[in-house]
Amino acid sequence: MVTLVAPKDFSPVEDAETIKKACLGWGTDEKALISVLGNRNSFQRKLISLAYQEIYHEDLIHQLKSELSGDFERAICHWTLEPADRDAVLVNAALKKAKPDYRVIVETACVASPENLLAVKRAYRFRYKHSLEEDVAFHTKGDIRKVLVALVSAYRYDGHEIDEDVAISEAGLLHDDIYGKAFSHEELIRVLTTRSKAQLNATFNRYQDIHGKSITKGLLGDPVDEYLSALRTAIRCIRDPKKYFVKVLRTAINKEDTDEDALSRVIITRAEKDLKEIKELYLKRNNISLNQAVAGETHGDYKEFLLTLLGKEKNQALN
Amino acid sequence: MVTLVAPKDFSPVEDAETIKKACLGWGTDEKALISVLGNRNSFQRKLISLAYQEIYHEDLIHQLKSELSGDFERAICHWTLEPADRDAVLVNAALKKAKPDYRVIVETACVASPENLLAVKRAYRFRYKHSLEEDVAFHTKGDIRKVLVALVSAYRYDGHEIDEDVAISEAGLLHDDIYGKAFSHEELIRVLTTRSKAQLNATFNRYQDIHGKSITKGLLGDPVDEYLSALRTAIRCIRDPKKYFVKVLRTAINKEDTDEDALSRVIITRAEKDLKEIKELYLKRNNISLNQAVAGETHGDYKEFLLTLLGKEKNQALN
Repeated sequence: MVTLVAPKDFSPVEDAETIKKACLGWGTDEKALISVLGNRNSFQRKLISLAYQEIYHEDLIHQLKSELSGDFERAICHWTLEPADRDAVLVNAALKKAKPDYRVIVETACVASPENLLAVKRAYRFRYKHSLEEDVAFHTKGDIRKVLVALVSAYRYDGHEIDEDVAISEAGLLHDDIYGKAFSHEELIRVLTTRSKAQLNATFNRYQDIHGKSITKGLLGDPVDEYLSALRTAIRCIRDPKKYFVKVLRTAINKEDTDEDALSRVIITRAEKDLKEIKELYLKRNNISLNQAVAGETHGDYKEFLLTLLGKEKNQALN
Repeated sequence: MVTLVAPKDFSPVEDAETIKKACLGWGTDEKALISVLGNRNSFQRKLISLAYQEIYHEDLIHQLKSELSGDFERAICHWTLEPADRDAVLVNAALKKAKPDYRVIVETACVASPENLLAVKRAYRFRYKHSLEEDVAFHTKGDIRKVLVALVSAYRYDGHEIDEDVAISEAGLLHDDIYGKAFSHEELIRVLTTRSKAQLNATFNRYQDIHGKSITKGLLGDPVDEYLSALRTAIRCIRDPKKYFVKVLRTAINKEDTDEDALSRVIITRAEKDLKEIKELYLKRNNISLNQAVAGETHGDYKEFLLTLLGKEKNQALN
């Protein structure tokens, strides 16, 4: 479920005019921007962008970028983009970092449905004139390349049919692959990157039943081993995306320097999907609501914007 | 250009009735089937299939299968399928052979445009309830798996932009990869399976300019080395599909036992695309027209059907 409650009656032209007004003059009226864009769903934001372009012959994102700065700018610009295009931008940014953030790539590849991942790949090609696989392969090497390229290339079957025999036999294969001598993970990578998610979850369950431990247990290593970490992330994203996102949020918030990129990414990309359940799970696991946790670690317009997307709580002090 | 000249005026209902009539009674009127189906384009065949289903509550392919047999049956059934679905069927059949025909998989992955390959993958998922990547990965092992899975997974950028610097630097990388000590082909596989075809052709050309030989030269090995052979096939399909198909046809025809699967596949899959140019190139290379060569190695209804798709030549004896 979503946290966003978009108004049923809305005028793209009026919204575009409000945004233009907020950008004119000496200062920018950030509150007005948050109040408009933070309360419109993806389709409405698209209409606002189109209206803005039509009326002012100017790209809305371009206008926002020139008016704003820092985490708030990045967050509201990402939010304003169409979802598939936004994911393309996020993945590209993760890839181009001095130290690429492989987690974002794995997350995008494994959480999205096969059709949504395809939409991201189309948007990526359109925007960057390269395929996503091409850029991932170019910016990586060795084992991590094998996993990442295969994950972003996957166009999985998305039916719900499960083959129990395959689940049992592949649970065995995976165990051999993880604990055997070869340590090449060839079968693990094959299974993880080609089987449907329904089938994978059946296989993970059989693995747990037969071997009495979760499959990620065998993939623990030095925490900086980015290859094992990518495998674990992929498995977690396929098993239980909400639980995975709760963990990303907690890590981002609890870091000495809050990881605003991760915080914004999860809130923005999930706000129109399952942010409500993520909030519930966050509270259950951390004994503090996500709104409170976010409010405690962020400031100013950025804080106000994230709280708008989170949906303000009744008893939340608007401090 | 195509060899098929489909009638502008045609009635799907009349055609469906002609087909039904040809199937009724003691024998089957194969000539009538060839005359109808062999002279209709893909869209018209689709309408005929729909009309057939509507009138007789029976699947046209199913009806044809039950009436016909052997190479003729396979050929006319494949021809009647929609192109993407047909490719899915051909790839699946190639994969399920006792000795999988990897060439068909490479050919399908490398000749089709990115959007057409995607259509094949969709058709495959719909028909087999598995993804194409999944089945290819499951039925293969080791090096050949690496190449095939990456090729069928590719969703390449299909613009015409070329980066000359990348072409030069990757031509060097490929040479090191092929002639260096590692012999892992990691870079070759990355480049071959992720770069756009336009970029790859630029890279292959730079390779030839710099090293004075074609890139496939370094990939010669024992002719039964299916891994090297798959790499060479991929390069040929990307460089010059028509030249590649002429070679497949010549090999199929010149075999002691004609390879009807390959013969039918090329004629059927290219008839509505570039079969005219393939015929011209065949004649130029082999000093015999493709029609004559096919007529010399095939018989009966199968022969008649292939010649219909090839477009009969003016001076061709109808023996």
